Amino acid sequence: MSVTDELLANNEKYAEGFDKGDLPMPPAKNVAVVACMDARLKVGALLGLDEGDAHVIRNAGGIISTDALRSLVISQHLLGTKEVILIHHTDCGMLTFEDADLYDKVEENLGSRPSSSDFEAGSFNDLEGDVRKSLETVRNYPFLLHTDSVRGFVYDVKTGKLNEVT
Amino acid sequence: MSVTDELLANNEKYAEGFDKGDLPMPPAKNVAVVACMDARLKVGALLGLDEGDAHVIRNAGGIISTDALRSLVISQHLLGTKEVILIHHTDCGMLTFEDADLYDKVEENLGSRPSSSDFEAGSFNDLEGDVRKSLETVRNYPFLLHTDSVRGFVYDVKTGKLNEVT
Repeated sequence: MSVTDELLANNEKYAEGFDKGDLPMPPAKNVAVVACMDARLKVGALLGLDEGDAHVIRNAGGIISTDALRSLVISQHLLGTKEVILIHHTDCGMLTFEDADLYDKVEENLGSRPSSSDFEAGSFNDLEGDVRKSLETVRNYPFLLHTDSVRGFVYDVKTGKLNEVT
Repeated sequence: MSVTDELLANNEKYAEGFDKGDLPMPPAKNVAVVACMDARLKVGALLGLDEGDAHVIRNAGGIISTDALRSLVISQHLLGTKEVILIHHTDCGMLTFEDADLYDKVEENLGSRPSSSDFEAGSFNDLEGDVRKSLETVRNYPFLLHTDSVRGFVYDVKTGKLNEVT
C-alpha cells in the first residue's frame, strides 16, 4: 500500500464525519496566509483556522514568487481578503543551500542541469531579512488592493510559536 | 483587534500545548501535496496528516506553476519525497472567470491593468481536464526524481471526499 493509499483511507474517515458542506467560497476571516511548504508547519492548526476561514498559499520557503502574488491578487480582488500573513520558519531547508547547489544536485541525480530560466531556486541565507524583503514586496506590489495589514513572522519549529518580524 | 491579532492569540494557545519540537526536516511520509489555496480545504485534516508528515504546496487553483515545480524539485531532490498528490476541488473560484476578467477587475479597482507579463491568471474551465493536464505536466517534467506515484483528485467541498481523476 502506497502512502497515497493510506492518506486516501484517512480521507474516507474524514468524509464520514464531515459537516462543513455549506461553506461559501470567500474566506470567512478575510485573510490570506503565505507560508513555507515545510512538513512541520500545520498552518491551520498553528493559527487556529477552521475550514472556510482563510486562503493558504504555500511553496518552498514561503517566498513571494510571481505565483504567490497571482494568488494574492485573486484572493483580494475576487474573494475579498484584506489581511496578509507571511510565515517563514526556523530550521528552514532554504537556508541550507545556494541556488547552484540545487542545480548541482539535480544534475548529479538525473544527468541534466536546470538553469534559472527553468526556475530560480529561491534559497536565502538571512531568515528575518527574507521576511522583511517579502513584506516590502507585498506592500509595494501595484496590483494588490489591501496592503495596510501585511505582517510577517518566523515560526519556531521547536516551540510552535510565531515571532513577528518588524 | 485585527483578524491577524486574533490568529496570533490562537497561536499562543497552540504553542502552550506544543509537543512536536523534535521533528526532523524531511517529511516522515515522503509525500508532497499540491492543492488549491481555497479556504474550505483543510489539507492536513482531509488527508489525516500530522505535523512533520508531508510537504504542502498551495496556490490559487492548485495549478502546476513554475513555482509549484520548483517546490517539488526541492521536495524530491533535497528532502526525499517520492509521491505526489494533486488536489483540485469542486466549486473552485478558478472556474468562475477568464484570465481577462481578472485583469479587468484589477483595472476597475485600481486603475492600472496587469498583463500576462505580470502574471498569468491561471483560470480554467474544465476541472477534471485541468487535473489531467497537471498530472501530465508533473509526470513529464524533466527535473523531478520520482514520477511513478503522481495521482490527482477532485475534492468535493460538499462531502469532504477526494475523488480520483485518472
